[in-house]
Amino acid sequence: MCQLLGMNCNVPTDICFSFRGFSARGGGTDVHADGFGIAFFEGRGCRLFLDPEPARSSTVAELLRRVPIRSTNVLAHVRKATQGAVTLENCHPFQRELWGRYWAFAHNGNLKGFAPPPGRHYRPVGDTDSEAAFCTLLEDLRDRFPHGRPPLAEIHSVLAARSCELSKHGPFNYLLSDGEHLFAHATTALHYVGRRAPFGPAHLVDEDLTVDFAAHTTPADRVAVIATTPLTDNEDWAELPPGRLLVFRDGGPVDPAT
Amino acid sequence: MCQLLGMNCNVPTDICFSFRGFSARGGGTDVHADGFGIAFFEGRGCRLFLDPEPARSSTVAELLRRVPIRSTNVLAHVRKATQGAVTLENCHPFQRELWGRYWAFAHNGNLKGFAPPPGRHYRPVGDTDSEAAFCTLLEDLRDRFPHGRPPLAEIHSVLAARSCELSKHGPFNYLLSDGEHLFAHATTALHYVGRRAPFGPAHLVDEDLTVDFAAHTTPADRVAVIATTPLTDNEDWAELPPGRLLVFRDGGPVDPAT
Repeated sequence: MCQLLGMNCNVPTDICFSFRGFSARGGGTDVHADGFGIAFFEGRGCRLFLDPEPARSSTVAELLRRVPIRSTNVLAHVRKATQGAVTLENCHPFQRELWGRYWAFAHNGNLKGFAPPPGRHYRPVGDTDSEAAFCTLLEDLRDRFPHGRPPLAEIHSVLAARSCELSKHGPFNYLLSDGEHLFAHATTALHYVGRRAPFGPAHLVDEDLTVDFAAHTTPADRVAVIATTPLTDNEDWAELPPGRLLVFRDGGPVDPAT
Repeated sequence: MCQLLGMNCNVPTDICFSFRGFSARGGGTDVHADGFGIAFFEGRGCRLFLDPEPARSSTVAELLRRVPIRSTNVLAHVRKATQGAVTLENCHPFQRELWGRYWAFAHNGNLKGFAPPPGRHYRPVGDTDSEAAFCTLLEDLRDRFPHGRPPLAEIHSVLAARSCELSKHGPFNYLLSDGEHLFAHATTALHYVGRRAPFGPAHLVDEDLTVDFAAHTTPADRVAVIATTPLTDNEDWAELPPGRLLVFRDGGPVDPAT
């Protein structure tokens, strides 16, 4: 199994504080030491940092805890290998292009017996059930809408249907983003907290560190942070309902039909 | 215009020394300050570091000059924008998946009036002629060989034909790799040096720094370094013949028919 971290904001925001607590779970406060990765969307661009080293000791992770990268959509993952060796190609998030946008995906769970045939458009490079699931989701979207991006409700409908089916193979908690929306699917464990004015202090679970967001934000800022288990011990984290595919945009959940 | 750096080796090798000299050209010894990027292939995996900041001052580039990442195929690029704004999505190298492998591409040149229609399989995310050319090359390979990877000679033939055609739009110096082979196409400026035993000292052009490769290698090591202009001033760099597509494997050029 693994752990997930996501962030969706209405203005580019850095994730140093959350990533500090989260990356401690990559071999420090928890056992997810088989590599890590993090994707930052900035406009249409996406930068993806991957490392098969533990997030706690990786020099790349050290840089990311220290240097703020401002992004509106972030996905991160610390890996505890179930399927696939501890190698670079098996690190999440995975990235592909669809409809002229980058999509990134990270998964927590274990899809037993899931071995789809190679897709017409997307094939896994590594050996994980997770990358195969990502390729399946994109293949569905592309088969259904080959010429370009449909309205959000249509994307949601295709993803929700396939996610329900894939969940029959085992836990399928995932984060998926195209840089505009962040999709979060929970079957067993995923929590989120919404931060907005008035901002206050937050204290990490995994390290004795507090940040006062009031000093780093404007009243219009909205930030949603999603994680396998809560990252702070003094905020109200909500559990994502099992079997539901939520969509976050501009710092909060939205109705995909709007 | 821009500058290119590539490395192809028979054993995983770090590129810290070459990247040190090369990244100085990203706003230090030369004007290519509109972002940079570098792709490291490690087995089937590929890690891509991109930054719209100048390579000379980027904190990511600083890490890459300092921390050795061992790879058999590396592509790097410092950008001087001609087409497309200075944004993350326009940084090279670009990456896509084909036949279950990652492919990365970086370009030096300017393809005027090159505006292909969206491909059936690959679409640019950013606005550069370079990414459009990369998508066109992959589209050709996929159209011709939809089911899987053909022999190298067939790949070379498809790439060479399209590269010749694209060169009519302007300078088309590029590096392309699938992690096993490194393709280098020159029209106006690309040089390479082959390093093998007996190894000796090399001195950078862009910085007063010497490394003695004899201290860091074994007699079996073979390394080819490719760059827009030579990176060292005491080695024999060969100019790539204009209009030719060379293929490097295991640290040296190979005949694609073998």
